[in-house]
Amino acid sequence: MRWREPPAIYLEDRGSPVERSSYLIELPTDDGGSYDVIHDASSPAAGDCCAQQSSARHNWEMNYQEAAIYLQEGENNDKFFTHPKNAKALAAYLFAHNHLFYLMELSTALLLLLLSLCEAPAVPMLRLGIFVHATLELFALMVVVFELSMKMRWLGFHTFIRHKRTMVKTCVLFVQFIEAIVVLVRQTSHVRITRALRCIFLVDCRYCGAVRRNLRQIFQSLPPFIDILLLLLFFMVIFAILGFYLFSPNHSDPYFNTLENSLVNLFVLLTTSNFPDVMMPSYARNPWSCVFFIVYLSIELYFIMNLLLAVVFDTFNDIEKRKFKSLLLHKRTAIQHAYRLLITKQRPSGISFKHFEGLLRFYKPRMCTRERYLTFKALNQSNTPLLSLKDFYNFYEVVGLKWKAKRNREHWFDDLPRTAFLIFKGINILVNSRVFQYTMYTVVAVNGIWILVETFMLQGGNFFSRNVPWSYIVFLTIYGVELLLKTTGLGPVEYLSSGWNLFDFSVTLFAFLGLMALAFNMEPFYFIVVLRPLQLLRLFKLKKRYRNVLDTMFELFPRMASLGLTLLIFYYCFAIVGMEFFAGVVYPNCCNTSTVADSYRWVNHTVGNKTVVEEGYYYLNNFDNILNSFVTLFELTVVNDWYIIMEGVTSQTTHWSRLYFMIFYIVTMVVMTIIVAFILEAFVFRMNYTRKNQDSEEDNGIVLEKEISKEEVVGIIELYKRSSAAPETAQLQKIVLQMDKYGQMSTTFLGRRSRTKSDLSMKMYEEEIQEWYEEHSRKEESQAPLQESASASNSSLKPLSLRQRSQTVI
Amino acid sequence: MRWREPPAIYLEDRGSPVERSSYLIELPTDDGGSYDVIHDASSPAAGDCCAQQSSARHNWEMNYQEAAIYLQEGENNDKFFTHPKNAKALAAYLFAHNHLFYLMELSTALLLLLLSLCEAPAVPMLRLGIFVHATLELFALMVVVFELSMKMRWLGFHTFIRHKRTMVKTCVLFVQFIEAIVVLVRQTSHVRITRALRCIFLVDCRYCGAVRRNLRQIFQSLPPFIDILLLLLFFMVIFAILGFYLFSPNHSDPYFNTLENSLVNLFVLLTTSNFPDVMMPSYARNPWSCVFFIVYLSIELYFIMNLLLAVVFDTFNDIEKRKFKSLLLHKRTAIQHAYRLLITKQRPSGISFKHFEGLLRFYKPRMCTRERYLTFKALNQSNTPLLSLKDFYNFYEVVGLKWKAKRNREHWFDDLPRTAFLIFKGINILVNSRVFQYTMYTVVAVNGIWILVETFMLQGGNFFSRNVPWSYIVFLTIYGVELLLKTTGLGPVEYLSSGWNLFDFSVTLFAFLGLMALAFNMEPFYFIVVLRPLQLLRLFKLKKRYRNVLDTMFELFPRMASLGLTLLIFYYCFAIVGMEFFAGVVYPNCCNTSTVADSYRWVNHTVGNKTVVEEGYYYLNNFDNILNSFVTLFELTVVNDWYIIMEGVTSQTTHWSRLYFMIFYIVTMVVMTIIVAFILEAFVFRMNYTRKNQDSEEDNGIVLEKEISKEEVVGIIELYKRSSAAPETAQLQKIVLQMDKYGQMSTTFLGRRSRTKSDLSMKMYEEEIQEWYEEHSRKEESQAPLQESASASNSSLKPLSLRQRSQTVI
Repeated sequence: MRWREPPAIYLEDRGSPVERSSYLIELPTDDGGSYDVIHDASSPAAGDCCAQQSSARHNWEMNYQEAAIYLQEGENNDKFFTHPKNAKALAAYLFAHNHLFYLMELSTALLLLLLSLCEAPAVPMLRLGIFVHATLELFALMVVVFELSMKMRWLGFHTFIRHKRTMVKTCVLFVQFIEAIVVLVRQTSHVRITRALRCIFLVDCRYCGAVRRNLRQIFQSLPPFIDILLLLLFFMVIFAILGFYLFSPNHSDPYFNTLENSLVNLFVLLTTSNFPDVMMPSYARNPWSCVFFIVYLSIELYFIMNLLLAVVFDTFNDIEKRKFKSLLLHKRTAIQHAYRLLITKQRPSGISFKHFEGLLRFYKPRMCTRERYLTFKALNQSNTPLLSLKDFYNFYEVVGLKWKAKRNREHWFDDLPRTAFLIFKGINILVNSRVFQYTMYTVVAVNGIWILVETFMLQGGNFFSRNVPWSYIVFLTIYGVELLLKTTGLGPVEYLSSGWNLFDFSVTLFAFLGLMALAFNMEPFYFIVVLRPLQLLRLFKLKKRYRNVLDTMFELFPRMASLGLTLLIFYYCFAIVGMEFFAGVVYPNCCNTSTVADSYRWVNHTVGNKTVVEEGYYYLNNFDNILNSFVTLFELTVVNDWYIIMEGVTSQTTHWSRLYFMIFYIVTMVVMTIIVAFILEAFVFRMNYTRKNQDSEEDNGIVLEKEISKEEVVGIIELYKRSSAAPETAQLQKIVLQMDKYGQMSTTFLGRRSRTKSDLSMKMYEEEIQEWYEEHSRKEESQAPLQESASASNSSLKPLSLRQRSQTVI
Repeated sequence: MRWREPPAIYLEDRGSPVERSSYLIELPTDDGGSYDVIHDASSPAAGDCCAQQSSARHNWEMNYQEAAIYLQEGENNDKFFTHPKNAKALAAYLFAHNHLFYLMELSTALLLLLLSLCEAPAVPMLRLGIFVHATLELFALMVVVFELSMKMRWLGFHTFIRHKRTMVKTCVLFVQFIEAIVVLVRQTSHVRITRALRCIFLVDCRYCGAVRRNLRQIFQSLPPFIDILLLLLFFMVIFAILGFYLFSPNHSDPYFNTLENSLVNLFVLLTTSNFPDVMMPSYARNPWSCVFFIVYLSIELYFIMNLLLAVVFDTFNDIEKRKFKSLLLHKRTAIQHAYRLLITKQRPSGISFKHFEGLLRFYKPRMCTRERYLTFKALNQSNTPLLSLKDFYNFYEVVGLKWKAKRNREHWFDDLPRTAFLIFKGINILVNSRVFQYTMYTVVAVNGIWILVETFMLQGGNFFSRNVPWSYIVFLTIYGVELLLKTTGLGPVEYLSSGWNLFDFSVTLFAFLGLMALAFNMEPFYFIVVLRPLQLLRLFKLKKRYRNVLDTMFELFPRMASLGLTLLIFYYCFAIVGMEFFAGVVYPNCCNTSTVADSYRWVNHTVGNKTVVEEGYYYLNNFDNILNSFVTLFELTVVNDWYIIMEGVTSQTTHWSRLYFMIFYIVTMVVMTIIVAFILEAFVFRMNYTRKNQDSEEDNGIVLEKEISKEEVVGIIELYKRSSAAPETAQLQKIVLQMDKYGQMSTTFLGRRSRTKSDLSMKMYEEEIQEWYEEHSRKEESQAPLQESASASNSSLKPLSLRQRSQTVI
């Protein structure tokens, strides 16, 4: 199949756009309808030819930029009402949307958060004078003011006011400002619980989008969660009353002597951290009293707590799907907006390459010319010179692909001389053979058992002897040889492209470093030696389920990290509040009046001629500085023996302190339940996906193949030459040279990217997506009857099946 | 629409069956092919007319019985290879399949299990002499032998050998027999761990089918579970080695001084029951050591443990669906087998009422004639005189319906005189009004707050004063009046048909009993007073989610109970093993050499002039008898501070005892994970169902409406008169009389039953079920090309939509 039209024709297009970028006309900012259709796109048709051309080019540049902004908004899920409405707003938008600005945002937020390390109950090593940290804070707040003013310029006053998150941020900023000034003036820190609100500066960062999404998801899951929580608390109150009536006559039972104690102890019992202790006094008196506790735990812990998980899981699933849907439709709308800015009056049926290239120059400045053309070709499924809206809908799926020329060589050593080739080929076959693999597995297993036995034989004492054990050297040599063989057999690039090989490589490297540490006796690095057993993880490659699990683990990692960060933000808030109220409250032998005095004891007494130290250690779980607070909060998260910490603090303050600990427990319960629901959802989704696509081949990302003929490359070079962008054509000319060298008429390129959750969802909900699209376009038609969108939405579109390899030229 | 043929014709049918019951021909039991098709069903066509008729009737009776047995097998999910193959087997089958036999089975099993209460480490009050309990055991075992011999007679030797569960039971029986005799001879109990196997007698009971299913499900979920468990243990070993290297140089750290300790403590840390204690010694020395514990807990507890749940949940979902599918297809096959036995040579296209009635006489002997006819009509969707296979497929859905004549009266008081009617009508309107309901909710809420405040005011002391508090009387009066109004307004039958009203009623009754107890000063019943706050549960009716949750709770209840029973069976096994090894091992002040000595301390010392008792109480958590063992095992299930119990026992025995506790933990983890997965699955399933059927009306079971004309009733009476079954027609004649009285030509009956999980699944998997059926019939065709099944399976059948109300006569 040949091109019907010579490439030069469709590569260039001098028409004027159907719709003009809104930045060309200064619309009043408060009418809000900046992207109403302007059908009479009367580009300056008369006057000086040169001026007209330059003006037309300017027009187009503006259109490209606005289209790129629309696409960015679609990608980032920014609502269109924050779209910059005029040239001034655009400048502010561009200023506020680049990595330098984002980094500034992030570093200010981090600086503000890290200040807590140095403020009043500071980490001893990092203590700063009040003057210093207050000045730092003021400086950081000034930067935030600057950021906000840029944002206001971009959004305009009215949108700014309506944007909730920004408004909250402004209020917090205001409060922080006043407090910082007060601190500076008084030269002493007051109770500053508001410091807990500093997190909002971090949450609002562009880079913390995932955290924002998590928080939104948590808040959306709250209503059903609270409902079940009330049920839980209700049963707790009933049992507290019952327990009080049943057990308070027993005077040796300290757990139920008042209704408050009864409630608190049943709350702690829900976390099972005082079981069986809470039961023992009554159990000692009457064995049947265990029924009360068994019934309570069965209802509360084994039923309602699981119900909580079920409800959150269900809500979570539902939200995930709705989120996917809204994001998908948002992207689609963004693409429609961009499309309308890129078509010309002369050719209203599609986008020419020239305009597409112009768009990409703004959307992805780093992309090279070759990639831009390949993206255009990959999108263009109909092989006409113009890109229709239907093709353009796949923009987000295709634009992320990384293009590489398809190598004709199978192995890296194909070009080597015959003898070398045979040697390397032999190594290659050996390395890929099952025998080699299983030998290595055996070695790893033997090594594992060896380490275990070796460690078992050492019982205490100084095990880092000066002479390196010979077994270590033997195994390390074997791993070294394996590494060498694999690298030479597969070629370094292919070797390191597999995650598992990378893992092998780094573990072997660590083992080698450990050996160095042992040999040169560098004590601080001894811990590396200990990482040797990680080699054993390789054994899990053997079974499909483990590969599945570990792959899921890696896929989950970014999301898990963002959930962890979300948890840390909650930790931060609670740490600040804890420090303000409980700093310096617990210390050795502090709580002698409470029931948990033993855990806080620190006695240094002499028995015979030996000094015996009796340590309860719990005084270490305090809120004396932010790092200690974090560790204490982690202990509270794990909920074992947390009542010891709670009672310790309570005995030194008031019994209202318990509220702090209980609220913290409930908050972590929410976040933890959501983490569990998330892991469940991700894993079950993946298993369902695997089950549904059992027939499809091994999963290694998304691959798309495209062929380009020499003719086309020359055409593009011509195009660029005319628009005097000489440096960009250098790469293309190299391709032409290479084709000439090998006498090829065309080169094939492979586009690759890793598979995302969105791709999987696309495939899972294939049928439903069609319905959504149709529903969406119906809704849009009724709202704004646009020419293009109407014509496009009538044809039901299938998402691009990326596996389908299209060849345009034979 | 009128009947095309007069009813008398299709009500009677004198043809001979196409296929003869296998009990008529004495097939050799070992050929296994008893239900091969016998096409030449040459019923005795010549000879004495009377003898022929009686022989034909005998033939039919046999066919009915076998068809009923097939249907029972389909319902109980018994495999067809256990189908009784000849007349002798049939007798044994009938003997072994009735409630008397089942009860015998159950009571022997329970007797055997309960013997553990009286054997060697017996509950003090129930101790029996060795001679007594060994004789009892022998007796119970003899009964089991009898049961097994009946089973052998029914199954035949070859099938008996092949039936795994029965074979295991036989072996266990044999062992138990020998041991019981040994005990009797030696007059002393030896170490009898095999007693743990007694559970199999309970599991094999007909009534414990749910437990068997749970166990099967647990075993099916095991492979993926074990895979992830290995991953868990692997990381544990790696961290144990790492921990040993890092912390053993610290001599004040008792947790990591040997590799074994390191492993055990990390195992306990996985259950979080020694956190933060296990961290404190190293944390006191170096604050950064907390990183080790945080990383360990994050990987093991928060990631892999959740993964475990995810994997089990996923497997569980998959198994549930496959189970539903196989059960559905099994039922379908059973129906096909039964159908083939009920059609006649003359009318091969369907079953006549006479034969259907004959089948029901064996399948459900308690069913009355009216119900049989209604069932037939409900099944017969095509309104032809014969029941086709397609109609017959709905047998199981329809046969469970309870039929009642549709009442013409709206209220129970419609027939009363005018004045009374108006009064009751007024009460009815009042009771159903929103104002009344919300007033009651307010009263309940006020009552709740009252109780809470009242309890809070009482601080210790004897709160059961002699004079009944007036608030109690006031609220009880209000509830009494409400109860009275509701009963009179709605009628007692309708009032009690709602679960919520039943709940109200019982709580009010309890409150009344409590009042009696207070008034007449009966101390042991005081606890009833305490149940008053349960009234508050009524408030949860207000919100839809709570209604949903509580409904799900009630639906789950039978399944939860069977899961609980399954857990108890595991408990029993572990309790027996625990008692054999650890009975009498722990006692006050027993473990002074271990690290947990404090918890076992019991000191009685005098300070000044007061005697202070310091009790550690943990010596109460022992294995001294089976009841104590159960409580101890429950404490181990809750996994808080379980290491104190483990260390106590370990310090008195060997360190291998830890294996017992660890294995128990893992087993309960499996069962608990499955319980969680089950609750999740049930709840998510229900939510999905609700979401899918949002438009459908309020859910109140399955209702089917059928109308019968007088003509038909008379026809049935005639039929019965001819077959001289006079007493059965009495009820029918009453219907005719009633119709005459009201001058009706027909009566409408309502069939009702509650909705089961199977019904929901039917609706959820509607589309897939069609595929299964088609696949199934294709498979069957290829295996045994039967005339009928082939013709029936070609038409794709939809499951009966039970809501569809068909009216056969106008």
